[in-house]
Amino acid sequence: MTFAAIFVPDELRDAVSDEAWLQAMLDFEGALASAEARAGVIPQEAAQAIAASCRGDLFDAAELAAAGRRPGNPAEPLVRALREQVGGEGAGYVHWGATSQDVMDTAAVLVSRRALVLVDREVDGVAAACARLARDHRGTVMAARTLLQQAVPTTFGLKAAGWLVSLLRARRGVRAWQPSVELGGAAGTLAALGDDGLEVLRLLAEELELAEPAVPWHTNRVRIAELGCALAVTAGVLAKIGRDVALLAQTEVGEVREPPGSGGSSTMPHKRNPVGSALAVACAEQVRGCATVLTAALVQEHERGLGGWQAEWGPLSQALAYTGGAAAHVRGVLEGLEVDAERMRANLSDVIGAEHASFVLAGRVGRVEAHELIGKAARTESFRAGLLGAGLSPGDVDRVLDPSTYLGAADAFVDRALALYEEEW
Amino acid sequence: MTFAAIFVPDELRDAVSDEAWLQAMLDFEGALASAEARAGVIPQEAAQAIAASCRGDLFDAAELAAAGRRPGNPAEPLVRALREQVGGEGAGYVHWGATSQDVMDTAAVLVSRRALVLVDREVDGVAAACARLARDHRGTVMAARTLLQQAVPTTFGLKAAGWLVSLLRARRGVRAWQPSVELGGAAGTLAALGDDGLEVLRLLAEELELAEPAVPWHTNRVRIAELGCALAVTAGVLAKIGRDVALLAQTEVGEVREPPGSGGSSTMPHKRNPVGSALAVACAEQVRGCATVLTAALVQEHERGLGGWQAEWGPLSQALAYTGGAAAHVRGVLEGLEVDAERMRANLSDVIGAEHASFVLAGRVGRVEAHELIGKAARTESFRAGLLGAGLSPGDVDRVLDPSTYLGAADAFVDRALALYEEEW
Amino acid sequence: MTFAAIFVPDELRDAVSDEAWLQAMLDFEGALASAEARAGVIPQEAAQAIAASCRGDLFDAAELAAAGRRPGNPAEPLVRALREQVGGEGAGYVHWGATSQDVMDTAAVLVSRRALVLVDREVDGVAAACARLARDHRGTVMAARTLLQQAVPTTFGLKAAGWLVSLLRARRGVRAWQPSVELGGAAGTLAALGDDGLEVLRLLAEELELAEPAVPWHTNRVRIAELGCALAVTAGVLAKIGRDVALLAQTEVGEVREPPGSGGSSTMPHKRNPVGSALAVACAEQVRGCATVLTAALVQEHERGLGGWQAEWGPLSQALAYTGGAAAHVRGVLEGLEVDAERMRANLSDVIGAEHASFVLAGRVGRVEAHELIGKAARTESFRAGLLGAGLSPGDVDRVLDPSTYLGAADAFVDRALALYEEEW
Amino acid sequence: MTFAAIFVPDELRDAVSDEAWLQAMLDFEGALASAEARAGVIPQEAAQAIAASCRGDLFDAAELAAAGRRPGNPAEPLVRALREQVGGEGAGYVHWGATSQDVMDTAAVLVSRRALVLVDREVDGVAAACARLARDHRGTVMAARTLLQQAVPTTFGLKAAGWLVSLLRARRGVRAWQPSVELGGAAGTLAALGDDGLEVLRLLAEELELAEPAVPWHTNRVRIAELGCALAVTAGVLAKIGRDVALLAQTEVGEVREPPGSGGSSTMPHKRNPVGSALAVACAEQVRGCATVLTAALVQEHERGLGGWQAEWGPLSQALAYTGGAAAHVRGVLEGLEVDAERMRANLSDVIGAEHASFVLAGRVGRVEAHELIGKAARTESFRAGLLGAGLSPGDVDRVLDPSTYLGAADAFVDRALALYEEEW
Repeated sequence: MTFAAIFVPDELRDAVSDEAWLQAMLDFEGALASAEARAGVIPQEAAQAIAASCRGDLFDAAELAAAGRRPGNPAEPLVRALREQVGGEGAGYVHWGATSQDVMDTAAVLVSRRALVLVDREVDGVAAACARLARDHRGTVMAARTLLQQAVPTTFGLKAAGWLVSLLRARRGVRAWQPSVELGGAAGTLAALGDDGLEVLRLLAEELELAEPAVPWHTNRVRIAELGCALAVTAGVLAKIGRDVALLAQTEVGEVREPPGSGGSSTMPHKRNPVGSALAVACAEQVRGCATVLTAALVQEHERGLGGWQAEWGPLSQALAYTGGAAAHVRGVLEGLEVDAERMRANLSDVIGAEHASFVLAGRVGRVEAHELIGKAARTESFRAGLLGAGLSPGDVDRVLDPSTYLGAADAFVDRALALYEEEW
Repeated sequence: MTFAAIFVPDELRDAVSDEAWLQAMLDFEGALASAEARAGVIPQEAAQAIAASCRGDLFDAAELAAAGRRPGNPAEPLVRALREQVGGEGAGYVHWGATSQDVMDTAAVLVSRRALVLVDREVDGVAAACARLARDHRGTVMAARTLLQQAVPTTFGLKAAGWLVSLLRARRGVRAWQPSVELGGAAGTLAALGDDGLEVLRLLAEELELAEPAVPWHTNRVRIAELGCALAVTAGVLAKIGRDVALLAQTEVGEVREPPGSGGSSTMPHKRNPVGSALAVACAEQVRGCATVLTAALVQEHERGLGGWQAEWGPLSQALAYTGGAAAHVRGVLEGLEVDAERMRANLSDVIGAEHASFVLAGRVGRVEAHELIGKAARTESFRAGLLGAGLSPGDVDRVLDPSTYLGAADAFVDRALALYEEEW
Repeated sequence: MTFAAIFVPDELRDAVSDEAWLQAMLDFEGALASAEARAGVIPQEAAQAIAASCRGDLFDAAELAAAGRRPGNPAEPLVRALREQVGGEGAGYVHWGATSQDVMDTAAVLVSRRALVLVDREVDGVAAACARLARDHRGTVMAARTLLQQAVPTTFGLKAAGWLVSLLRARRGVRAWQPSVELGGAAGTLAALGDDGLEVLRLLAEELELAEPAVPWHTNRVRIAELGCALAVTAGVLAKIGRDVALLAQTEVGEVREPPGSGGSSTMPHKRNPVGSALAVACAEQVRGCATVLTAALVQEHERGLGGWQAEWGPLSQALAYTGGAAAHVRGVLEGLEVDAERMRANLSDVIGAEHASFVLAGRVGRVEAHELIGKAARTESFRAGLLGAGLSPGDVDRVLDPSTYLGAADAFVDRALALYEEEW
Repeated sequence: MTFAAIFVPDELRDAVSDEAWLQAMLDFEGALASAEARAGVIPQEAAQAIAASCRGDLFDAAELAAAGRRPGNPAEPLVRALREQVGGEGAGYVHWGATSQDVMDTAAVLVSRRALVLVDREVDGVAAACARLARDHRGTVMAARTLLQQAVPTTFGLKAAGWLVSLLRARRGVRAWQPSVELGGAAGTLAALGDDGLEVLRLLAEELELAEPAVPWHTNRVRIAELGCALAVTAGVLAKIGRDVALLAQTEVGEVREPPGSGGSSTMPHKRNPVGSALAVACAEQVRGCATVLTAALVQEHERGLGGWQAEWGPLSQALAYTGGAAAHVRGVLEGLEVDAERMRANLSDVIGAEHASFVLAGRVGRVEAHELIGKAARTESFRAGLLGAGLSPGDVDRVLDPSTYLGAADAFVDRALALYEEEW
């Protein structure tokens, strides 16, 4: 993650670092020993000795990674190092009945769970900011834009409400993700644990407060792919908000500005760039790339994948980090967003009343004829004159040229969005 | 979709064809008119006239597509054609208050819902076949393979159970998808419907038996992206099954064969290729490509996307078609799969008992020492002799060399998978 | 390709249709027979009989696709149908020594070569339009925009020159693609042709005017992946142009407009949407999706891929079609583009002179100090007053506020772009 | 890059580290100052002072990344830090006339050029290993496998030759990549350099030994996307080799083994996993993910991208690293590959002679009839008996059952591959 600090908050980077993975792997080993002691599979003392050694600071993540080159994963050297650390009788009971993938998969789940707390916090911040904007700006009239053309009037409140609903829906996908423990032994039968396999699995899940899978998921990667997808969808929504903000912040539009204090240029003194928006978009692009890797990794061979599995660790970490990064950036942008309601109003072109006029006129001349007449009026120099010429009464023309008379259900939609937000809180 | 019939069943291809889209668009227009008549927005007679004209056979999908080049979508020419078809008073009430994207988005949802019924049917068939294989082969011992190496014994029943659980989990994602109607008018405010917008929206949803969204989702593409992801995950699981089958069907492995009657070669008389598996994999690759487009399309501008929206129609159709295609192929493969239990047993190498031996020995010499000793034994010419040399008793050696003594929780896991299957039925 | 006519010109759709593939497959069979007759491998009469039957209208592509479901490709049924068609002695010499993949791969190459002629024609049209715009608008001053903020002045000519250079470079990638024949027989050894394999290969390449590969490329998919990438890069450049045009066409910017006659809305009479730009973007998204499939398909097993190969046909066809579609849309947009030079000039904000001012001032107070002073001036109400306050002379201020004095090498860069264009013509 | 050391050699990781980027950015600043001094734009002393400060060890990459959060890139804080470091008169001349993107883009190119040397070295190693295997094993008969079924005989030499040719072709793509300097100033006009822009550009390219672009490429990302594609193609070829090796190394196939010393399991003493192959596949998956990001990033707005640009740094670094990682792993695998020629020969099934038999018989009974007869023979218990029954003479049967008589042009193809290799050396 080149220059990662630009994109991802420190705490979140830490949460997906090699050190965080290492600690999660150790958490697995410690919990496994406890579970096995409770199940009577290994001695209580061994479990205690193991648990006492399952501290990340006793190991070197970089060394383990380097040593992992030969076996193809860092779990195998970690088990060796942990055995050495535990020493004595306990050493032999380290990792009892488990396989490297059990360690890695459960660590992936633990890392994800921890990181998701941070991601969720940022996403919540974005949602709260959207809700506030929706509430505060339900009366702020602005142009709705389709294909980047002014279409009909809307409110900035409804725009923010749309962001909010998108984000809530995306968040639902992430929150629905259920972290499960992994324990299958060498190839998913738990054979090394004899008759105690299921009991150990149950207790291990309990120890780590993780769900228990129906069967080991060594090559059932739906969990991982679904998480990748949910993150990509969330990041995509955040990028949509970011792009909208940047479009509104264009020099020629000027309806919003990112909060002061960022966005300076190395050479242009006047610039105030929508940097948070840009970085959110950049984060989302990368999450998407990661999600494609995780989805491709679904196709893993037999009882352990040849490459697909090993390809997951990095993209999973990055998908978490960059989704949180996107959320943090959008949150910063929205929490301090400067909204220029006057400019929004001023930007509204006259012809934005065209659809309104066309429906007013349709009552008299029919829909098709009206569409044509108003279309012509919109291409004349003065739309007002054109409307009068098309047969609208001066009162109708006044109404048509006042965008606040043509907001339809905008306000009601804001209410619905806010209700959804309260409900999902 | 080049040579689509190779990949996708006829019925499913029809379900996502331009004609199916056209009918779905007409269903929207008909239902909209009905809803508006019920809400008192348009005359009852107009609604009836419109409904009577909303039949796909009255229009030419190819012509509409060609005419859609200028406005950038086929809805605009369809509305014009429908007006002409309806004629008279009713013509002016066609598409009343709606926008092109309302038509297209609702059509996308209707097409998806219909296609998903067919996809689900095939997926169900795969699940049923997996369940049957899991049940029938819970006692069929075979090699579990990790990184394509024989690891420890397992059963073919557990392998099928693993496929089953993956598929059930993936199916849950698809089934959780909730089709919503789209109606926002020009830019999501329903302004053209005045005070009746929400009522028309409610009635339209009712007419089409679709959910009602909190707010219009013109640029909230979470629904579409999530469906794309769910399909890609499902297709990925199907490809995993396909690849496993093909690996088991290798000449040198020979543990399964695809059903007779397919897989011939144009030049090699002896070939019986795992064609269904190959085509399932090929389908899944394409679904994945489609899903990346749909996920990228989340980032749509303001109230209507510039390109992102228009990019969805094809990939959505294809993702549906190829997921169903993958399922149909895997279903055909599994329903007629020839399983060679004898060959499975015969393929088991002696050294597959190594982990078992190592755990037996660990009781006496400790885990680490045991691992090393058994590793050495595995590299001698006779594993049996090596085991005896390592200090195992003849009785232990017999047990270690009998793979059926080292199946751990395989049977219990099959039960758990089948229970899940029954539950989710 | 849902509603394909919206995106892709008719001729190009035909060029990648199943019928086009069928004819290309027949071209292979015909040429193979000729080559083999020339090499003395099969009788001259047989070759003639075969050649006479290699006409697409004698076969039904849809039927062959359906029949291809069992063997997993349409070549096997085509060979059978062709044998029947040829009849007599010649029948046995059809497809002599070749394998299904030889037919399909060579057909893929032939289809690509033909489609690329059409794609190239559209791309050339875009390049010519860019060149014209670059030439005509080298003096048209406008705002350069970075992160969607006005940055410094530039010319519309330079913007078009930038598009041109991007496209030329992308086109180079496509043109560098070298179509090769495929002939390897069952598994790449040409064993069925005995000692004549290399000679037949050479003559076949000659017959079809294709390059001869060093070795058969059944599972060397670099050619296909590279073509996919080159198309995705080209489409990406076209989407960049499309997005730029749409941004310039925004209501609030209004510096360009797509040609009249397209872009109408089904409900808003005043709309003139940048439809061509939107569709170009939509095409490019889909090409990108196809390219990911083709790149993933590089990993094919042993001497024939299990799924990877079969996944190529559709995405390759679509990548060709949508790239050409993107080009056709951008070409239409640029050939009729309405450029509003006055609006470009009028849109230039005063503060766009900030960098200029800062460099003028730097001479006196140093770069850092100048940057800060001008930054402050840019945030005052009157930039002119601010500049004078910052210590610039009235003459300098006049110069700074005249964007045409700060165009640097814009003109020279236009020359360089046009020179490159001439050179690569 | 989680546990990056597992995947990527140390030297290569260093080459794409933040520190490497930092040094490359400083190289740009130093070279720019020199070029500008040579062009008479800034004082010679200033250039010397600047050059003296352009040493990575004087700056802290992590700090710069953190500080880059506000401006959205690390170049802006670096310029400030460099000014401070240079101090005095020279400070004001740091970064004269350049923009942040000039620094970042040129750094990206320099980082790529340096990393590519390392990537190329590994790829060369793979090519050399392939060439050696092709040469040494041109007589080693083995089964060619299509759709994972034994098809006809081939040689391991030809298989290696196929890998070699793929890799040479992919390498050509990487080597064709031409690194260009970036210098456009604020928005691509070099306005701040007045009349000296082109001269400075020329001299800067000279200083850094980079090509000079026709026009600045701030939003012409073809270079970056093409590099991403070329790396993905190369990595895909490497993954193909990796997967082939792993398939050949399967317990049931056993024709090759990765070199001893790697591939141990944490729980199964007997395992010797094809770890290098698995990691190569895992690397390639990730390169592909990166390439999709880089290709999507082609669509950048106006004169500087909003998110697309910033999304490139990480994926570019990773694409370089993981391609090199894939190559290093495959190189290790192939350089020490244990090839079991006896097992290859032993694995050949009798029926692999079916095509041969069918062509022998075709001379007498015609191709279609022969195909059918031999197909039946292949399904009898004894293929030999079946062949005799089908009418082949005992001598023909002997020949058909000797795979070395049916190798066609295998040897000649090996020669062609080796010739290509020599040529491209």
